[in-house]
Amino acid sequence: MTAVVVGIDVGGTNTKFGFVDKDGRCLREASILTNAHEEATMFVSRVVEAIQHEFVSLRGTHMLVGIGIGAPNANYYRGTVEDPPNLNWKGVVDVVGLFKKYFTLPVVITNDANAAALGEGMFGAAKGMKDYIVITLGTGVGSGLVANGQLIYGASGFAGELGHTIVDVNGRWCGCGRQGCLETYASAGGICRTVFELLAMRRDESELRSIPFDQLTAKMITEAARRGDRIAKEAFETTGRILGMKLADAVAHTNPEAIVLFGGLANAGDLIFEPTHRYMEKFMLNIFRNKVKLLPSGLTEGNTAVLGAAALIWNELSSKPHSS
Amino acid sequence: MTAVVVGIDVGGTNTKFGFVDKDGRCLREASILTNAHEEATMFVSRVVEAIQHEFVSLRGTHMLVGIGIGAPNANYYRGTVEDPPNLNWKGVVDVVGLFKKYFTLPVVITNDANAAALGEGMFGAAKGMKDYIVITLGTGVGSGLVANGQLIYGASGFAGELGHTIVDVNGRWCGCGRQGCLETYASAGGICRTVFELLAMRRDESELRSIPFDQLTAKMITEAARRGDRIAKEAFETTGRILGMKLADAVAHTNPEAIVLFGGLANAGDLIFEPTHRYMEKFMLNIFRNKVKLLPSGLTEGNTAVLGAAALIWNELSSKPHSS
Repeated sequence: MTAVVVGIDVGGTNTKFGFVDKDGRCLREASILTNAHEEATMFVSRVVEAIQHEFVSLRGTHMLVGIGIGAPNANYYRGTVEDPPNLNWKGVVDVVGLFKKYFTLPVVITNDANAAALGEGMFGAAKGMKDYIVITLGTGVGSGLVANGQLIYGASGFAGELGHTIVDVNGRWCGCGRQGCLETYASAGGICRTVFELLAMRRDESELRSIPFDQLTAKMITEAARRGDRIAKEAFETTGRILGMKLADAVAHTNPEAIVLFGGLANAGDLIFEPTHRYMEKFMLNIFRNKVKLLPSGLTEGNTAVLGAAALIWNELSSKPHSS
Repeated sequence: MTAVVVGIDVGGTNTKFGFVDKDGRCLREASILTNAHEEATMFVSRVVEAIQHEFVSLRGTHMLVGIGIGAPNANYYRGTVEDPPNLNWKGVVDVVGLFKKYFTLPVVITNDANAAALGEGMFGAAKGMKDYIVITLGTGVGSGLVANGQLIYGASGFAGELGHTIVDVNGRWCGCGRQGCLETYASAGGICRTVFELLAMRRDESELRSIPFDQLTAKMITEAARRGDRIAKEAFETTGRILGMKLADAVAHTNPEAIVLFGGLANAGDLIFEPTHRYMEKFMLNIFRNKVKLLPSGLTEGNTAVLGAAALIWNELSSKPHSS
């Protein structure tokens, strides 16, 4: 019997899960519609049904030993999800408690960025490292900080909000209600805002001049930059400068061995890595220079979040005795 | 026989040490001149002699079980001090190795800010907390970060350089060679620079207009502010705004339960605590608001650094088995 865990990634549209062994092999993966309008109890019952259905083929050879969940606005300490932005779950939902109604197994939950950080450390780019940071450059900017080999959850479970460190107190309005958060510059939406600033400021021709604000995507900017569009290239330069500066600050906090970038914007590759690394080095205190690696994710793109959720529960199982 | 450790604080002028028991009681304290022009080997031999001399009165009732050292530019991992700014120790000095020539005891070293952080956690304002930050507002701005009950040293031992996070990339020149570091605003020297900026900008009368730049001290500004001097009061407001903003960033990194401020500028009390706390709350992400305490040091002022160095070795003795 080989021990496996199930890693669950709760997304706004789809919820993916996979059975993952201790070496990070995903033995079987499946996905159901999240159905954002449904209540949490119904959602969990559907997920459990799907897990049990998929596990049939592994029964006899594999033993399920734990459940790890990555979800937006999840709180590790309380096992809850609190007012998730894209789901119709009201208030504080005890997600761990709901799963424990079906399984007498250890169940843990954390937000997607923290799960990704554990995934990179256990199976990916930060394998073997004790001090590193993982940054997701997606719709938002999330992060997970690992120090002394442990994820930092902080006093109330909300550590690693690097997307909401401040670039400019008089800067762009953020969804959080404040101004100038890193997320308003270094996310997929952030680089779109930068493009529109540049289109307003510069006189360069650009294929992006024909696209309305609400249709522009980071992918279009990446493709335009690869075709040599000056505005698009400049937008990556600007994004890299701002992200690099805030990463230099992050290094001054926890002195990581590496920073791993992943998510939509990180898929632009050198377009974002090169300026980010250059400015990070420029703005870093001399004792850190040339010592902090900037790495792409080491996890297979498709199941990054599932592997992260699996790493969360594997990490839990290895670090402390757990009551079911 | 009661176990005691010796905590040593290596300063530019004086080196203090004290015998400290596990409850943070300093049983006996003494001080020698550091003699900054002396080589490290000579310095260590004098410190050892003084320790042995002072320990005579405790012999028979107390047993020395370890040595903790706080020193500028100290590296915990390597046991070294590297090019300290105010001492004539060239290159990398193996301070732990030098002490081990005299004692078959565990010896550990770290920088003064990290030692202070451990001291506050073991004996002071952060007693019992697992997640907190200690900031020293002195000649420089130092910091020690504790998460999951452990000090964060980072990959190369230089974590906690919050004084060198960047407020403004085009801002004031810093001793580190870059521009706009927090230290250039929130240190004792930083508030003096702020006063001179305000004197240039404003037309308010101020008793500080008669003091030349190289004679102004943070203490003079504190006293002037207490007498109602508008420029001095405004300087504290400005310092609190900048410090509060960067503390909000620090909270977004590690989500501490409390931030402890100590050092020269923290002695200004409410003059610095009130605006710093107000702006920290203002600039903090909503999930952190009203949850992070801003506290003064809980250690007796005189021997803060000695207690910190003692906490360093007590922490080491309690956390891992140590060979002598």
